[in-house]
Amino acid sequence: MIPHFKGLSYFDRPTLLQLLGLADQLKRHNVREPLAHGKVLINLFFNDSLRTRTSFEIAARHLGASAVTVTPGKGTWDLETEYGVVMDGNKPEHVKEAIQVLASYADTLGVRAFPEFQYYEDDRDERLFNAIASVCTKPLINLESSFQHPCQAMADWMTVRELFGDDLRSKRFVLSWAPHPKALPMAVPNSALEMAVLSGMHVTLACPEPMLLDADLMARLRQQLLPGQEFTVEHDQDKALDGAHVVYAKAWSGRQVYTNPNMDLAVRKAHADWQITKAKMKLTDQARFMHCLPVRRNVVVSDEVLDSDYAVHIQEAENRLHVQKAILMSIWNLSL
Amino acid sequence: MIPHFKGLSYFDRPTLLQLLGLADQLKRHNVREPLAHGKVLINLFFNDSLRTRTSFEIAARHLGASAVTVTPGKGTWDLETEYGVVMDGNKPEHVKEAIQVLASYADTLGVRAFPEFQYYEDDRDERLFNAIASVCTKPLINLESSFQHPCQAMADWMTVRELFGDDLRSKRFVLSWAPHPKALPMAVPNSALEMAVLSGMHVTLACPEPMLLDADLMARLRQQLLPGQEFTVEHDQDKALDGAHVVYAKAWSGRQVYTNPNMDLAVRKAHADWQITKAKMKLTDQARFMHCLPVRRNVVVSDEVLDSDYAVHIQEAENRLHVQKAILMSIWNLSL
Amino acid sequence: MIPHFKGLSYFDRPTLLQLLGLADQLKRHNVREPLAHGKVLINLFFNDSLRTRTSFEIAARHLGASAVTVTPGKGTWDLETEYGVVMDGNKPEHVKEAIQVLASYADTLGVRAFPEFQYYEDDRDERLFNAIASVCTKPLINLESSFQHPCQAMADWMTVRELFGDDLRSKRFVLSWAPHPKALPMAVPNSALEMAVLSGMHVTLACPEPMLLDADLMARLRQQLLPGQEFTVEHDQDKALDGAHVVYAKAWSGRQVYTNPNMDLAVRKAHADWQITKAKMKLTDQARFMHCLPVRRNVVVSDEVLDSDYAVHIQEAENRLHVQKAILMSIWNLSL
Repeated sequence: MIPHFKGLSYFDRPTLLQLLGLADQLKRHNVREPLAHGKVLINLFFNDSLRTRTSFEIAARHLGASAVTVTPGKGTWDLETEYGVVMDGNKPEHVKEAIQVLASYADTLGVRAFPEFQYYEDDRDERLFNAIASVCTKPLINLESSFQHPCQAMADWMTVRELFGDDLRSKRFVLSWAPHPKALPMAVPNSALEMAVLSGMHVTLACPEPMLLDADLMARLRQQLLPGQEFTVEHDQDKALDGAHVVYAKAWSGRQVYTNPNMDLAVRKAHADWQITKAKMKLTDQARFMHCLPVRRNVVVSDEVLDSDYAVHIQEAENRLHVQKAILMSIWNLSL
Repeated sequence: MIPHFKGLSYFDRPTLLQLLGLADQLKRHNVREPLAHGKVLINLFFNDSLRTRTSFEIAARHLGASAVTVTPGKGTWDLETEYGVVMDGNKPEHVKEAIQVLASYADTLGVRAFPEFQYYEDDRDERLFNAIASVCTKPLINLESSFQHPCQAMADWMTVRELFGDDLRSKRFVLSWAPHPKALPMAVPNSALEMAVLSGMHVTLACPEPMLLDADLMARLRQQLLPGQEFTVEHDQDKALDGAHVVYAKAWSGRQVYTNPNMDLAVRKAHADWQITKAKMKLTDQARFMHCLPVRRNVVVSDEVLDSDYAVHIQEAENRLHVQKAILMSIWNLSL
Repeated sequence: MIPHFKGLSYFDRPTLLQLLGLADQLKRHNVREPLAHGKVLINLFFNDSLRTRTSFEIAARHLGASAVTVTPGKGTWDLETEYGVVMDGNKPEHVKEAIQVLASYADTLGVRAFPEFQYYEDDRDERLFNAIASVCTKPLINLESSFQHPCQAMADWMTVRELFGDDLRSKRFVLSWAPHPKALPMAVPNSALEMAVLSGMHVTLACPEPMLLDADLMARLRQQLLPGQEFTVEHDQDKALDGAHVVYAKAWSGRQVYTNPNMDLAVRKAHADWQITKAKMKLTDQARFMHCLPVRRNVVVSDEVLDSDYAVHIQEAENRLHVQKAILMSIWNLSL
């Protein structure tokens, strides 16, 4: 039983592996039992979603429970997230009230809140998500916050275990930055890196220098390395891909986006050739291609890679359903 | 069993008290039984909602039933509400067809239709809601119409009973008008007043003179007073608060908003000091603070009041779930 | 058991009649049994919906299953539908990924994709729907594609059987084009015509000449006529209505809308008198009035016709629920 699922770092490796074991079982046996009859998950989305919303709704239904989705601006009003303000603008309700009310209705709450891209420190410290957590009286699930996407990371971890088995220590995982027309959060790359370190794989972060991930996060992850586990940063993508068993592509913006968005855009434009193509994949050791989706074809990755046999992005997405079912079961103290 | 829940005035006091009694039981025992398996509630929202939609969806699910939410303009088209018109504009379907069709699918229909703010008489007489009711072949629930919000009133009534017990005759309930940047309906204050009268409390309506509620409604409520029950109108807020046990704050617009919105705005601006603050609450007899939500912090009520121990707005919101579960059970002729 | 419900033409008459028989039973016995516990239907709507979404959600719930609705642009992002493009615009995900992912979550997928009105051949050949079908690994239901609306046709067929009995061979069905302010697809008239031919009724297509339906479709339908079954095209509405037992009104645009929208608009304006009025209905043999909804009052049909006893549009809409429940049961291999 877990009390919440706010992020990977709240749990030790055995707990996370137990969740993955349960997810494996749920997938293998295609479990659809009304174990959680009457339970209700409310998911509050400050940002759009395709997989997260649908997979949680379905995970709940497979267990006989329900999920109710709330989307400010889509049938309900926008929520104020600043504290202490005079609310005379166009946000008629404060997130503090909304969370307390929804928590009074639900057995569990999920919240998606992307970075605000105002102050780096606020996003890094997950100011909004943590403010929500502090008034939420029910177990809280992180549906992607400003700096992490732990449900995605669990699905990715499940996927690499399916591909390579439980002992991943000899595998080389490359998280490769990719170009993108828009500024994007660091949440997914942060969590992919954290997952890869926890999984025991050798990890390479491949990115243009301005796209380096948070220094504190990197330092924390280095401290979690197993004996012999390698963790490398590489600014030459070709070199990084050499010998890779997994290429995990993801676009994100560097810290400069907070102070100089134009510079960030320039860096993204200058590295359009970081797109993952068939030629890039040939540099690897017959690597699998991973991506969390949504993915922009022929920007982040070429059609031929995405449509190949070695692309496992659909498998990753499907595994969202299974790991989230395991998370709900664990929060609700249910077993098979 | 009730045949619908179109408003408080359709029922006598014992029937409403029975619903409250059932709601108490449902809350106490946290009832989640598939008593209503296969039943379906359709809720049609012409206006945004947070609590009403989620609490009804969850009330239905707790009973093994389902709620389907329909929101014109959000995944479905806008509905024409005028009769006899040539529909060559941007509303491809008439509410008359929509209601008949949804009623053919559902076991019960809920409808939210705020005032149109065109003609006072239309809103007072609930033209749109009643037109809907007249073609609805299934039990209809009022999710807030132009002139009342009976589900909110029931949750509020449940809350004051939880706070003060069943015999409320010695308690002083003050409905205090509050400032607001936007023109708002009279539905909530109307129903709060009606509830307070039915509950047996002494009732004070505190508002600037232009914000008086409908004269006919006031006259009807006065006729329902119990022997010894007081009903006062007070334009001096401080005086009204003296000795109060409940301060129920709510912003609304007076009748002048129909003919002179600028004048209404001026009145609202001129009475910004009607905001409920800690100093105002000190005038009361250790009153509880109530609000139906959504509430604008530091406009309607100050942070310090809303974050205090005597604020019960979250309790009111939670009770929406329980009273609505009782309403559904009664409409569907279910018992514990 | 049927493997999908992509369109009427995939099935022979006995299979469709079996579905209608099951729908009759489901309606008669008001079936609400958890026969499909744990099953999940995902419906993806590229276009707005009222009846289709709600009736499928409720059909699923009546069977103990669930439906999850996905609407690009409403809580999720827009989907790219072109192939081979560089996705650097405002559509962050390709429909190919979305469909594969949703298919991995669901037991059955429904898709609504109206015509793009770019190239007639693309819409006629249902380019988008078929591209979706080609990557969908789960049974697919057509919720209205560019050129057909088979669920509507089944509900309409059920309705005429309820009105006139199983042997419809002596009945005269008139599909009458109707005026409309906007260009509309041919999907509903195509499917209404196909249904009417399959049902054995004598069929008349009444429309201004530019509004003729697709020549290939017409030829295919003529080949399916039973011995003695008549199929006529008539450009004089009054003549067409003479002796009709069913008047099925529907607005659509002719092929010219693809190349000359102004000409299409001119034709629609010039034939405003094709509105179905009481006077028009008097020309018939006491015909029933049918329409798939949404319908524009006093443009397509007059208030007095729509509010009359012989209008059966609500019955048609209700039957959507029953035929779709039968379709889900058949896809999921369930029986009563």
